[in-house]
Amino acid sequence: MRQYLENVREKSPLVHNITNYVTVNDVANVILAIGASPIMSDDEEDAPDITAICGGLNINIGTLNKRTIPGMFLAGKRANALGHVVLLDPVGAGASKLRTETANNLLREVKFDVVRGNISEVKTLYYGSGSTKGVDADVADKVTDENLDSALSFVKDLANRLNTIVAVTGAIDLVADKDKCYVIRNGRAEMGSITGTGCQLSGLMTAFLVANPEDKLGAAAAAVCTMGAAGEIAWERMQPGDGNSTYRNRIIDAIYNMDGETLEKYAKYEVR
Amino acid sequence: MRQYLENVREKSPLVHNITNYVTVNDVANVILAIGASPIMSDDEEDAPDITAICGGLNINIGTLNKRTIPGMFLAGKRANALGHVVLLDPVGAGASKLRTETANNLLREVKFDVVRGNISEVKTLYYGSGSTKGVDADVADKVTDENLDSALSFVKDLANRLNTIVAVTGAIDLVADKDKCYVIRNGRAEMGSITGTGCQLSGLMTAFLVANPEDKLGAAAAAVCTMGAAGEIAWERMQPGDGNSTYRNRIIDAIYNMDGETLEKYAKYEVR
Amino acid sequence: MRQYLENVREKSPLVHNITNYVTVNDVANVILAIGASPIMSDDEEDAPDITAICGGLNINIGTLNKRTIPGMFLAGKRANALGHVVLLDPVGAGASKLRTETANNLLREVKFDVVRGNISEVKTLYYGSGSTKGVDADVADKVTDENLDSALSFVKDLANRLNTIVAVTGAIDLVADKDKCYVIRNGRAEMGSITGTGCQLSGLMTAFLVANPEDKLGAAAAAVCTMGAAGEIAWERMQPGDGNSTYRNRIIDAIYNMDGETLEKYAKYEVR
Repeated sequence: MRQYLENVREKSPLVHNITNYVTVNDVANVILAIGASPIMSDDEEDAPDITAICGGLNINIGTLNKRTIPGMFLAGKRANALGHVVLLDPVGAGASKLRTETANNLLREVKFDVVRGNISEVKTLYYGSGSTKGVDADVADKVTDENLDSALSFVKDLANRLNTIVAVTGAIDLVADKDKCYVIRNGRAEMGSITGTGCQLSGLMTAFLVANPEDKLGAAAAAVCTMGAAGEIAWERMQPGDGNSTYRNRIIDAIYNMDGETLEKYAKYEVR
Repeated sequence: MRQYLENVREKSPLVHNITNYVTVNDVANVILAIGASPIMSDDEEDAPDITAICGGLNINIGTLNKRTIPGMFLAGKRANALGHVVLLDPVGAGASKLRTETANNLLREVKFDVVRGNISEVKTLYYGSGSTKGVDADVADKVTDENLDSALSFVKDLANRLNTIVAVTGAIDLVADKDKCYVIRNGRAEMGSITGTGCQLSGLMTAFLVANPEDKLGAAAAAVCTMGAAGEIAWERMQPGDGNSTYRNRIIDAIYNMDGETLEKYAKYEVR
Repeated sequence: MRQYLENVREKSPLVHNITNYVTVNDVANVILAIGASPIMSDDEEDAPDITAICGGLNINIGTLNKRTIPGMFLAGKRANALGHVVLLDPVGAGASKLRTETANNLLREVKFDVVRGNISEVKTLYYGSGSTKGVDADVADKVTDENLDSALSFVKDLANRLNTIVAVTGAIDLVADKDKCYVIRNGRAEMGSITGTGCQLSGLMTAFLVANPEDKLGAAAAAVCTMGAAGEIAWERMQPGDGNSTYRNRIIDAIYNMDGETLEKYAKYEVR
């Protein structure tokens, strides 16, 4: 995993983010922490220009609204035309008609390298509809050791149907193309008590993909391992009285300090 | 006070927030810290769907703009129709025509369970107009021990007129319906040096109300005590060189770690 | 430098910010940390009212979009009419047509007391066009000891042409009017690994100018020294394992604790 990380630090890619206003600051700081550069732009007149000077585009539909939807399509198509990496984070797909339809329309009109969401959001994209409890995966739909085989079939099938890498994050993370799936067991449940760890991962992952064009599946998996390892390292540094706000800071700090050797030591994954 | 808090942790309500982009991240993390789940959505096409899957709705008019106003009305009415808790935080009412009129219009068209603001904002709603120095209460209008009796009459009268709970926060916090008022003496003045402690309290309070439908007045008061207690606990943990940014983190951390026993120990209130 | 700072703490100016949603929370907390008060408002119907009750206006074009552009012009003109301080932070000017044109149009229609940006953005305003790598200055365009003389000529010339103070921040900071330039050597390179230290400085600087109307050039320079000193003090407090997220908090904390004596001790500048 170390080479993927070291490529990010060496190449310092510029990542264009069209993302929600809830977690945008943390997304920017995570991208900086890994040694890349973030730029945020969402207006339909601005986003295509900005994406042209970047290496990759991260589209996140949290706080989706009609003002920013046109910019997502225009920037996505521009990034496609330029051969840039494009990632979709379908936050809350299944929770509202606007989010579900926009995610499905984006998948039709823009070619995505990766779709990264929780199992509930990803299932929505699979079935074309679904139900989501806010931005967290349904408890009944968690990927566990018991249902791992069927989950693997599901993500590979979806990756095949969408012709993209599918990254499903939860207690067990799956990063798959149609043939191969990284099964990753990094991270901690307490990361769910921080808003936006998923959004942060999407920004981070875009940087990893831009810096590792020759192996996008491995790069996406390395980003998941990096975020999870950071969650574990940050937890080790927690003191009595600390809570989710300090944990948030320490996770970003851990990404800032992550090097290839540390990532190699922490990464827990198998390829299926 | 402990039962109100324990109900939030046990029921983990989903809270829909239409809120400003300044403090939205902290609002989300505070809601997570208390064991509830936040979701943010403001578009008129998205907000009604999102509110339908939630237990309560927190409407905050900081950074008010015409793009998000229609969603406030639509989501508010939808929440009313579904019998959900709805809270109004009239940030900056009195400081501009748009904010004052929108707050007054919302109060006319949506039934609110609680209105939570500073004394200046709340007076604006009472008088239908007013002057506000930004988002802080006028110094001349502070609730003090000297003017407490008249302040109590004022908030009970406003609660009666608006048919809602009124929560006025400042050095002394008042949480009243038309008959009864909790007078709360928790918190610290230094909390005013952090942006958004009021917005955070509104998100927190919505979660408390959803989890305690049988006693909304007590639930609103418990939320105020929780936020104030967290401000006191967080201050105890401050080290030399720490300032408002660290204080912010430690307040959210203190909410993350708050249990019923701690709240009971810190809560300082009387009922008048 | 101490008097400029002490005037901010004594007068506690109210600063209106029309700024991007990436770094807005930090901007608010920095303004509070220095003892001033922030208010954010961007709607064309709201912003002119809000600016009227403030002492200064900070316009920042990060995440520029067509919804908020009219409010920038209206609030800017209103602030001009009222004799308020107005600052422009041309984030990403040169990176897109929308940003470059809007910055140039603002400079034509609004009288700015200060323009504060990195060298790439400021050169864009000078040449009427340019290229920007995201929001960071081009490496080839850094102000260094080797090119300091030509950089001084450039900023004084631009200050003359725009009839404003020009503050160019980077490894060496320049704060100039047409006759005189503060050359400031505070701060640390690691501040570039935090999103929004430039935006924070713009908010801080607006507060300094409002509190020191008799010497705006000195006030702008004092704001730069304060931010840089805070970056140095914060770095001294970094512990093993800390990274950019903790550094962000500690910089704001250092501003919260900054007094005139400390600023005097840390400030490193010459006037050219």
